[in-house]
Amino acid sequence: MNYQQLVGEIKRKQSFLCVGLDTDLKKIPPHIREKADDPVFEFNKAIIDATLDYAIAYKPNLAFYEALGVEGLKSLEKTIQYINSRAFTIADAKRGDIGNTAEMYAHAFYNQYGFDSITLSPYMGADTVEPFLKHKDKWSIILALTSNPGADDFEMLKIDEDYLFEKILKTFSTAATSQQVMFVVGATRPQYFEIVRKHAPDNFLLVPGIGAQGGSLEEVCRYGLNSNTGLIVNSSRQIIYAGSGTDFDEKAASQAKQIQQQMKQILVEFKITG
Amino acid sequence: MNYQQLVGEIKRKQSFLCVGLDTDLKKIPPHIREKADDPVFEFNKAIIDATLDYAIAYKPNLAFYEALGVEGLKSLEKTIQYINSRAFTIADAKRGDIGNTAEMYAHAFYNQYGFDSITLSPYMGADTVEPFLKHKDKWSIILALTSNPGADDFEMLKIDEDYLFEKILKTFSTAATSQQVMFVVGATRPQYFEIVRKHAPDNFLLVPGIGAQGGSLEEVCRYGLNSNTGLIVNSSRQIIYAGSGTDFDEKAASQAKQIQQQMKQILVEFKITG
Repeated sequence: MNYQQLVGEIKRKQSFLCVGLDTDLKKIPPHIREKADDPVFEFNKAIIDATLDYAIAYKPNLAFYEALGVEGLKSLEKTIQYINSRAFTIADAKRGDIGNTAEMYAHAFYNQYGFDSITLSPYMGADTVEPFLKHKDKWSIILALTSNPGADDFEMLKIDEDYLFEKILKTFSTAATSQQVMFVVGATRPQYFEIVRKHAPDNFLLVPGIGAQGGSLEEVCRYGLNSNTGLIVNSSRQIIYAGSGTDFDEKAASQAKQIQQQMKQILVEFKITG
Repeated sequence: MNYQQLVGEIKRKQSFLCVGLDTDLKKIPPHIREKADDPVFEFNKAIIDATLDYAIAYKPNLAFYEALGVEGLKSLEKTIQYINSRAFTIADAKRGDIGNTAEMYAHAFYNQYGFDSITLSPYMGADTVEPFLKHKDKWSIILALTSNPGADDFEMLKIDEDYLFEKILKTFSTAATSQQVMFVVGATRPQYFEIVRKHAPDNFLLVPGIGAQGGSLEEVCRYGLNSNTGLIVNSSRQIIYAGSGTDFDEKAASQAKQIQQQMKQILVEFKITG
């Protein structure tokens, strides 16, 4: 899914919601965990069916699938096939490695699994991202300022006048790549969105930290929105574990719809409409 | 494998060589690629059999297995089972994510696959490493100064008097964790090993970049060795693709032996003997 298509979907659904598929076998409702052949996939399928009207993206967190070994990765493959380009897909994998290895990861996530995008850790430098950018119809989502307390340890270190995360933004946010590069910026530090937009006015930002981690949608939008929206806001646990009984999908739909309604109001307010 | 056992193996084999299992289906000798049911595992098994006398560690690079999808991860599982604690195992995965996700990765690599250690990217901060350290008999190998040219982009940025990689070393190299924490320091920048040892005198360093990437074993050892050796030096392509015919395993053994002989000489010279 390219930049224009993504913006089109946001306007059509009046939503910039991403549903995080952090699917934990222990938290799946018992009637699925105990009866389905592939409970992780069945759970994801039900969540996707319930939320597809309200969400424009899905973000499986690789850790949850890898923790189940080979079976977990089969569930992941089936989940991406089931979405089948009906929404933007994000492999939350936070990879980052030297050239020949990065090419292997790009192949794995873009071609094997068929994801639209992958999250990347920039620590090792620009040459670890370049192999991903060669895949012209695919996206790199680079960690900038994350939502966890540990972001203070290195991301917020000052180098001359800049925070380290600003150096990351400056390195990767050239106009040429706003069609292919997004940044992760956590909702738990809304006061920094103004700085982020200074360096990356056109790039989409993937925003975790709403809900369970305490971030506020309104505050993120105040400084984060741009004329093409420019935000994909993720919610994981708040939606997928909204219920734990046989009506978990209805509860998930209701939570997703509630966030989408807030987003619709914000888009109208900022005059970003279809 | 704990610190003492690792040092014991180094002294017994007179080697601190790690063989990088960057197994690429396209580079496997044709007689295995075309005939074996699981060519990646058969190749790894032959390489392990050929090099186990000379190497104390094996480091599969996750990208190469993930690029083959679910089948690749089955090959990886079988490889770790085959090593079966006869050597130290390193999951070269460069993971790094928030708490609940980090716990999932720790479970995946330590418990599901059974690795002794995993490489971690520190960008997101100390709280992303802590869940790994709770596994008391297991190791975290944290990226500090890597071997690629891109290391200049962020790792070498100056913050007050320190390079960013020094901030990483200071954060994670407390005496309490030298039994559980190693650092990645590339062989391509041997002049920085003196700085690294200032901050991390007791920690093991995992050193990539010998061979194909141009680093020198002698230069690394000059400043990198400590009284318990404190180095695990990796070689991947130079060993595993030393030959491409039916005698590829003999060629691999011969390359590994040659490096081990150099290491033995260095250990004797530095009086680190069994």
